[in-house]
Amino acid sequence: MRNPLLVPDLRELLRDGEDVALREFLTDHHPAHVAEMVEDLGPNEGDSLLRLLALRVRAEVLGYLDTDHQVRTVERMNPTDAAALLHLMSHDERADLVNRLDEERVDSILPHLAQAERDDIRKLASYEPGTAGAVMTTDYVTLPPNLTVREALERIRHEALDRETIYYCYVVDSARRLIGFVSLKSLILARPMARIEDIMQRDVIFARVDEDQEAVARQIGKYDLLAIPVVDADDKLLGIITHDDVLDILRQEQTEDILAFSGVSRDAEADEVPYWQSSIPAVVRRRLPWLLMLLLAENLTYPVLEYFDWVRKQNEALGFFIALLIGTGGNAGSQTVGTIIRGISLGEIVGRDSLRVLFRECAVGLLLGLMLGTIGLMYAHLWRHQPWALSSVVGLTILCICIWANTIGALVPLLARRAGIDPAVISAPFISTLVDATGLVIYFTIAIIILIKLPH
Amino acid sequence: MRNPLLVPDLRELLRDGEDVALREFLTDHHPAHVAEMVEDLGPNEGDSLLRLLALRVRAEVLGYLDTDHQVRTVERMNPTDAAALLHLMSHDERADLVNRLDEERVDSILPHLAQAERDDIRKLASYEPGTAGAVMTTDYVTLPPNLTVREALERIRHEALDRETIYYCYVVDSARRLIGFVSLKSLILARPMARIEDIMQRDVIFARVDEDQEAVARQIGKYDLLAIPVVDADDKLLGIITHDDVLDILRQEQTEDILAFSGVSRDAEADEVPYWQSSIPAVVRRRLPWLLMLLLAENLTYPVLEYFDWVRKQNEALGFFIALLIGTGGNAGSQTVGTIIRGISLGEIVGRDSLRVLFRECAVGLLLGLMLGTIGLMYAHLWRHQPWALSSVVGLTILCICIWANTIGALVPLLARRAGIDPAVISAPFISTLVDATGLVIYFTIAIIILIKLPH
Repeated sequence: MRNPLLVPDLRELLRDGEDVALREFLTDHHPAHVAEMVEDLGPNEGDSLLRLLALRVRAEVLGYLDTDHQVRTVERMNPTDAAALLHLMSHDERADLVNRLDEERVDSILPHLAQAERDDIRKLASYEPGTAGAVMTTDYVTLPPNLTVREALERIRHEALDRETIYYCYVVDSARRLIGFVSLKSLILARPMARIEDIMQRDVIFARVDEDQEAVARQIGKYDLLAIPVVDADDKLLGIITHDDVLDILRQEQTEDILAFSGVSRDAEADEVPYWQSSIPAVVRRRLPWLLMLLLAENLTYPVLEYFDWVRKQNEALGFFIALLIGTGGNAGSQTVGTIIRGISLGEIVGRDSLRVLFRECAVGLLLGLMLGTIGLMYAHLWRHQPWALSSVVGLTILCICIWANTIGALVPLLARRAGIDPAVISAPFISTLVDATGLVIYFTIAIIILIKLPH
Repeated sequence: MRNPLLVPDLRELLRDGEDVALREFLTDHHPAHVAEMVEDLGPNEGDSLLRLLALRVRAEVLGYLDTDHQVRTVERMNPTDAAALLHLMSHDERADLVNRLDEERVDSILPHLAQAERDDIRKLASYEPGTAGAVMTTDYVTLPPNLTVREALERIRHEALDRETIYYCYVVDSARRLIGFVSLKSLILARPMARIEDIMQRDVIFARVDEDQEAVARQIGKYDLLAIPVVDADDKLLGIITHDDVLDILRQEQTEDILAFSGVSRDAEADEVPYWQSSIPAVVRRRLPWLLMLLLAENLTYPVLEYFDWVRKQNEALGFFIALLIGTGGNAGSQTVGTIIRGISLGEIVGRDSLRVLFRECAVGLLLGLMLGTIGLMYAHLWRHQPWALSSVVGLTILCICIWANTIGALVPLLARRAGIDPAVISAPFISTLVDATGLVIYFTIAIIILIKLPH
């Protein structure tokens, strides 16, 4: 959608002061596209373009700029203008923005806002990152239960301009406790003289303010909601989280899964800290536990290599294949564990499937092993000029290791789930490490059978 | 939210034929919660509970059952009842459901539906999986441009019950070409006598019917849309994709990233095939290319081990640490690549950051290496009773390998991005494999420096 060809034209119009033509052009475009133009134009001309827009549109465009641009644009404004824009922005976006401005700037802007808005910004900025409170917004519609549908629609029309959404309205009692919910659709379908309390849905899906944002996102997804209300311990309504915030939360969650799979310890709080904001010691603290555990597990390879050293001594070339063989095992196991974790998390693999899964992954391992084993055999014989006997040890080991790695790669996440552990914490390095020592045992055992004269 | 304590009570009420009390109880609950009760009750009693509900509510509850339950519930119904339910379900959900029923069942149900509905189901079921067409729905509101706002609201009220969403309405010309868009919010705010064509937004964000579902999901997320219209090559409106479908698409995408990271080749089409539906040969075809490539890369370890064999021969114990050392390198590299891929995909690491990232990851590697290296040194000396000289070779190698693995783990995804390759295809096994051969070179080089008398 981004059209860089526009930029020279916009520059020319700006230089020639063609404000009328520019305004007309801009109103024809989606605020998100105007935001792209502002980003492409750079600070000076971008600011000029923004100034051409009505204040309300400007606030909307600002919301579509990426965070860096938002901060820098507001930093270039005088405090009164900045306050006027903040006044019109959606409440969660403006709280995030204020959170990112430096304190001096905030102190110069906030006095230009009404007390209630200052309190709202401070309040929203004060919730623990990663909780429902930190992502919710406060610009929503509430209705008292005794209103008629006609009165409710009138009120919604009146408030619509300043609300993030008017499609879900929340019914609260005199103490602001959440007691029901009506959608705009149900209001439009109801008789105008019906009372809200008679048509509202009483079984409201809600979130607690200190609940984890991911749990809330999952609720919204599960119930196909446009928004979910957020309440405190006394059921008082504090805010709502809208469907578009869910996507941001899920994007975070998604990358957390990759992180866990790569062998970095899970840490709900640390996972929400952006890359550049986590200190190096904090990063080390998160990575060390798994590395240490894996190092201890890798220690098993020492006694295995030591124990079988007499085998290697009878045929020195055996030693040259070690890294290749356990590497291949680790790679095959990593693929399988990735496949199984995906299947479990999509709900495609359920409890009763365990045996079928194991059988299937063994079969895949067998086929992969046959192909890779043949290649390994030919490689050892033709390229490395090893005799057929040793080459077949290599080929057979690849076959067995592939089957074994696929079994481990399937078994471990299945067992983890059975034990009530989230399979997504099983990392690729964990499976590789498990396969390393056992793979060596397989290798030397096959070597003994095919190659070696046992000492008598 | 799930409350298993309800089940015995529900059973008793069902057995006693307390239909009035049950109906009252059920209308107080969210359809999603009723769906959970139906699932918990099992087939017979679940069906009885469903039958107590008004047909429209029953259709809604059915939509909240998981896919397996949906299919089995419909299979137990007589064709007329099933058709009546399908008639009321949202169009995309019913197309998915029909796709999962066996053909015989479909042939018995469809004749009970109107021709237009049969065509709609067949049409929606015919789009390629993974495209916008396959996830869109057809129950949306269209408006002609010459309507007044008052007339439009009247029409929306009239159609609301049978539409998945009424909050976004699409303006089409006489040839059904998409020419604009109005939100219900803008209709409510507009003067009743204004014409739709005067208030509609002409810069509509849309998707093509054959576009990849993930690209569409990203558009919805980027522009914070409730729904996106789907058009054919002639701009004719074919359907809409709503915000709740985005979450399902993203869940798929998320697990695809895990799969790629585990070393299974990306394949846009195959990624959408559920675990049990992909044939074993198809699975093997997807896993083989990476395994083969990695096997070839692992071959590099052979000449390294062969070349440095004279070093190992001077101190046999050197060989016992090989698997441990390259394993640790692979693990550290895997953590780093996971961290960097996450940072890039969240937009936290941008192009100009590359050098800072490298520096930071080296520093992390240095700290991790110092700690793990000390542990390795003590382990070799105290547990494996190796002399201090060889133990320091082990400790120093761990230190150097950690720094090196972290550098590689950061460098490779950064270079991939610079080369225009999606960094998310860089897998943990790929990094481990890269570190294997180079790690061995580091090990033996340190051994030579500290331990070995060079042959003269």
